[in-house]
Amino acid sequence: MPRYKATLEYDGTEFEGWQAQPHGNTIQQFIEKAFAEINLKNIKIFGSGRTDSGVHALGQVFHFNYDHDLECEKIILGLNHFLKQKSVSILSLEKSSEDFDARRDAVNRIYLYKILNRNSPPAIQRNKLWHVSKKLNIIQMQTAAKIFLGEHDFTTFRSISCEAKSPIRTIIHSEIFENGNEILYKIKSRSFLQHQVRSLVGALKFVGEGKWTIEDLDLALKSKERKNCATPAPSCGLYLEGVEY
Amino acid sequence: MPRYKATLEYDGTEFEGWQAQPHGNTIQQFIEKAFAEINLKNIKIFGSGRTDSGVHALGQVFHFNYDHDLECEKIILGLNHFLKQKSVSILSLEKSSEDFDARRDAVNRIYLYKILNRNSPPAIQRNKLWHVSKKLNIIQMQTAAKIFLGEHDFTTFRSISCEAKSPIRTIIHSEIFENGNEILYKIKSRSFLQHQVRSLVGALKFVGEGKWTIEDLDLALKSKERKNCATPAPSCGLYLEGVEY
Repeated sequence: MPRYKATLEYDGTEFEGWQAQPHGNTIQQFIEKAFAEINLKNIKIFGSGRTDSGVHALGQVFHFNYDHDLECEKIILGLNHFLKQKSVSILSLEKSSEDFDARRDAVNRIYLYKILNRNSPPAIQRNKLWHVSKKLNIIQMQTAAKIFLGEHDFTTFRSISCEAKSPIRTIIHSEIFENGNEILYKIKSRSFLQHQVRSLVGALKFVGEGKWTIEDLDLALKSKERKNCATPAPSCGLYLEGVEY
Repeated sequence: MPRYKATLEYDGTEFEGWQAQPHGNTIQQFIEKAFAEINLKNIKIFGSGRTDSGVHALGQVFHFNYDHDLECEKIILGLNHFLKQKSVSILSLEKSSEDFDARRDAVNRIYLYKILNRNSPPAIQRNKLWHVSKKLNIIQMQTAAKIFLGEHDFTTFRSISCEAKSPIRTIIHSEIFENGNEILYKIKSRSFLQHQVRSLVGALKFVGEGKWTIEDLDLALKSKERKNCATPAPSCGLYLEGVEY
């Protein structure tokens, strides 16, 4: 059966995350409803992965099957006409190979985390970044971010409810950079553990405010104990930037 | 009586503009209410100028009188605790000279206009920029933007209800630049006419999509007739970036 690949952007603020749930206000269900609105009934979509409540995406990917040829440009227009009620926007739609799987075939996932580091809370970007008043030491955070590179057991930095079989992940990019009074963190890996990025950002913030030294961070990682995790960063600053295939 | 100067950021989406009106949901009234919440009663604030419904600010300025010394840092915290319910954030507060006037003393006002130039509507930045699907010619827009520089009669590009005595304004900066798929326009002048920036951006968009040549734009300006104005750009893309004193 023909299969299609879509990329999309969304503001996670008004949703209970990506993954469909009974009576849930989720992004997956909202998109499936949009398909029904344009008379593509019973479409079930499969994302590259879940995002939690409040987490945004600049480039989430999903696939779905449909037993006829679709005029992709028209479908995008139709879907977006419905989706724009709630800050979801389909960026691209194309026919893929019949065995393309948005989750399984992902080679890398890229996340971006945004911190606003100033005294006053955000107005324009409310719910789009983490507001940290205390001045953070970016140089220290940049050094700390490099500790995550390579293969590690991330037991300290995953949720207790994480269902992944192995806590080992290989981080191929981990970088802190500055943009005005925003501190941005970019991280790339084949896959991530539950709450991993938010836990890592929480640790980097501890380093930035001087609550942890870089050695403290290193010890926390090596301890492989969740109780040694820093307070995880809130979901509102997290963006699924893209998925590589 | 001691006078204070404040700068602030706001998301204009949920307000009916800056200027107080009877029973109005305006930014001015919301801030005056915030002062009352922290027990500074009957404060009346005076902005550098009005912004229309839906227009945002990165650096609006206002002044107010208060007959005692204020601990500015504490006042900011108190105000923002209340203001953050609605995407308004005080960035700075300081004692000014007793004759400082946020409107009259402004030497220059700087506006920024944001266009998202891609097929899909915005999700993350919904209500924060103007979505234009048709691919715009940035080079043409950059040339066109230079026409506004210097002193001109802007009758074509001001609202019919504009109450300014003279339609003549001197534009000292007028520049189009690119940031990914965003097209940004920055303009600076001592003061602006009602709906002037949105009218100018509407004209630049006409040039960008090829509806107008640069000569058409020049003729529209020189005609000094409002009926020759392009469709004004929507308020959601407009930001009062700052005020110079």
